[in-house]
Amino acid sequence: MSDTRTASTFSPPVMEARRWLDGVSFPPERPLLNVSQAAPVDPPPEPLRRAMAEIVMQDASAHLYGPVLGLPELRAEIAALWRRDYRGDVTPDQVAVTSGCNQAYCAAIAALCGEGSEVILPSPWYFNHRMWNDMTGVRTIPLETGPTLLPDPDRAASLITPATRAIVLVSPNNPGGVEYPAELLAAFRDLCRDRGLTLILDETYRDFDSREGPAHDLFADPDWDDVLVQLYSFSKAYRLTGHRVGAVTASVERIAQMERFLDTVTICPTSLGQKAALWGMQNLGDWLAQERAEIIARRRAMEASFERLAPQGWRLMGCGAYFGWIEHPYAEASDALARRLVREAGVLLLPGTMFTPDDSEAGRRQLRIAFANVDAGGIAEMETRLAALPGA
Amino acid sequence: MSDTRTASTFSPPVMEARRWLDGVSFPPERPLLNVSQAAPVDPPPEPLRRAMAEIVMQDASAHLYGPVLGLPELRAEIAALWRRDYRGDVTPDQVAVTSGCNQAYCAAIAALCGEGSEVILPSPWYFNHRMWNDMTGVRTIPLETGPTLLPDPDRAASLITPATRAIVLVSPNNPGGVEYPAELLAAFRDLCRDRGLTLILDETYRDFDSREGPAHDLFADPDWDDVLVQLYSFSKAYRLTGHRVGAVTASVERIAQMERFLDTVTICPTSLGQKAALWGMQNLGDWLAQERAEIIARRRAMEASFERLAPQGWRLMGCGAYFGWIEHPYAEASDALARRLVREAGVLLLPGTMFTPDDSEAGRRQLRIAFANVDAGGIAEMETRLAALPGA
Repeated sequence: MSDTRTASTFSPPVMEARRWLDGVSFPPERPLLNVSQAAPVDPPPEPLRRAMAEIVMQDASAHLYGPVLGLPELRAEIAALWRRDYRGDVTPDQVAVTSGCNQAYCAAIAALCGEGSEVILPSPWYFNHRMWNDMTGVRTIPLETGPTLLPDPDRAASLITPATRAIVLVSPNNPGGVEYPAELLAAFRDLCRDRGLTLILDETYRDFDSREGPAHDLFADPDWDDVLVQLYSFSKAYRLTGHRVGAVTASVERIAQMERFLDTVTICPTSLGQKAALWGMQNLGDWLAQERAEIIARRRAMEASFERLAPQGWRLMGCGAYFGWIEHPYAEASDALARRLVREAGVLLLPGTMFTPDDSEAGRRQLRIAFANVDAGGIAEMETRLAALPGA
Repeated sequence: MSDTRTASTFSPPVMEARRWLDGVSFPPERPLLNVSQAAPVDPPPEPLRRAMAEIVMQDASAHLYGPVLGLPELRAEIAALWRRDYRGDVTPDQVAVTSGCNQAYCAAIAALCGEGSEVILPSPWYFNHRMWNDMTGVRTIPLETGPTLLPDPDRAASLITPATRAIVLVSPNNPGGVEYPAELLAAFRDLCRDRGLTLILDETYRDFDSREGPAHDLFADPDWDDVLVQLYSFSKAYRLTGHRVGAVTASVERIAQMERFLDTVTICPTSLGQKAALWGMQNLGDWLAQERAEIIARRRAMEASFERLAPQGWRLMGCGAYFGWIEHPYAEASDALARRLVREAGVLLLPGTMFTPDDSEAGRRQLRIAFANVDAGGIAEMETRLAALPGA
């Protein structure tokens, strides 16, 4: 089966990392610290759960097929939020709801690319982006970001070929944690427009951006939809990971193309999940603001911890949203170190090798910590364990 | 964008048919009869809704990511059901839960095919199978079924080329309604094994098969997993269409390949939907038996109606599960007739052209009626309206 779609890529990193836990015991005084996946560990707040329970009992449509592109009222609410937050013009028919943000990416690529197309992806990248490119016959062109973790538009320009269709940016970045400056996003928008490419901007972690005001002005451009495809997720904001609700915002023409993909792969996003997301948007604004403040506090704790770890050679290269991107001080490669961290420190994180091209030296020196999953006490405990880790 | 994945296929037929309703009014004395989509119109039974509401309130894991391949307890329950119903050996690690049965098909094709592969699909076919093949670069090789709606293994054998990877069968059939005899399925299994192909068997409608006992003995073959990939849906059995839960049963090696696709496209199936499906399997056996009896009664009503319509030239070619496949007596092609049926009879159904190759003469003469969506009174009303329809 070597020439099948799935054989063209690798196994899911998060599931592989879970297997490292097999056969390892974690004593009660040193329980597992799991900072591998960007996933809330608590359920949605009680008022949202109560609203969902009532919908389950009273609203038949919550159990039945809905439109392929999502519930009209949720599409309208998302468009209104983008108009408000980004001070631009976005209409409900420019929004589609998807079964999570991964699917939004898949649909966007399906609408933009064919066999042999090329997509420029800053490295380190989100591995599922790379996996989908592989499986759909799209060549991933790595754009090394270097010490700042910020992609360089000039360097990106030098990678464009006649086969290039899109540049993919993630801000706040997974895995790097950095928040891309508005001017950088505008520069990439201009580059894409100039070269006839599409800018895919994944804003899964936008609700935890530490900056005040609009993170970019891309939607304020009246012609935004000739160049921009924006992706979003409800998984983190309202702790709805298990309900699989995301969104994509693009031109009406591109949304119509994506409808073909979405219909064929899942028919529609879950009706209950969409109603939960809508309820959250309409009722949990204050709660989400608190969540954001808590995540930002954890980020400060991460920064303080790694300042204290710096003399040992640990370096926090990027930190924001859910993630810290770390350079480690050990001789071994990050994938070997990550396995050793499970056994010797009770810490599960993902190695840089999972986020970079096979030949990347940087990936071997770096690690991703999904710090949002642990509170300040957990971050302090992680610091203690990392400080105590012996050389290989 | 003419060479993109989505541009290689057509727009979703069910959504296109919905647009035929735009601007048409349906008077109270003749409301719309919608027999276009195979979708329950009522919510799940109250005990299941109550169980779901309690899960929403009490079970945090219902809101969070689960394993890519589904909840272990649901995979085990499905394996146990297949062992019992098909008298064969199926283990939980040979089962994966998917975000609906469409996704199960997509995952199976991704694990079996690459760009330029060929898949043999009996015609009339389920349009989303054709759409996925198009979008993933797989050539659909039509296998005409003729008046019986049953595919012929010898004819299929003549279509096999070095690029052929799989033969796809749907039983009970969508759109044809026919239940494939066990011997026919065994013959296709033998053909696939002999020629090194995979048999993909979509059993979405198995719970409404009118026959008693196992519908086939494919799982009773101790080596079934070298040739068979079986697909299933929870949407119809427990009226969970809006929760998107399906399943695929295959060899452990193939399940591992599909895990890459499933992780990348949706990360995991919805946790609540899976728990609802599991509760249904464990508690709604008697209720499902009644549902099946009701669907079979509606089938009898369909058969009786079309016997009465036969003198006008209507012909029921296949009838079972959720569907009747009809030959109509009018001069116009089925897609024009379907639009006219909306305006002149208040009936929404799908034309044969949506289920057949572009050049199919049969498709122009035929229609699909998803009769399971309407009760006996609705079927009688449809008969009255069809009988009264004038020529074009």
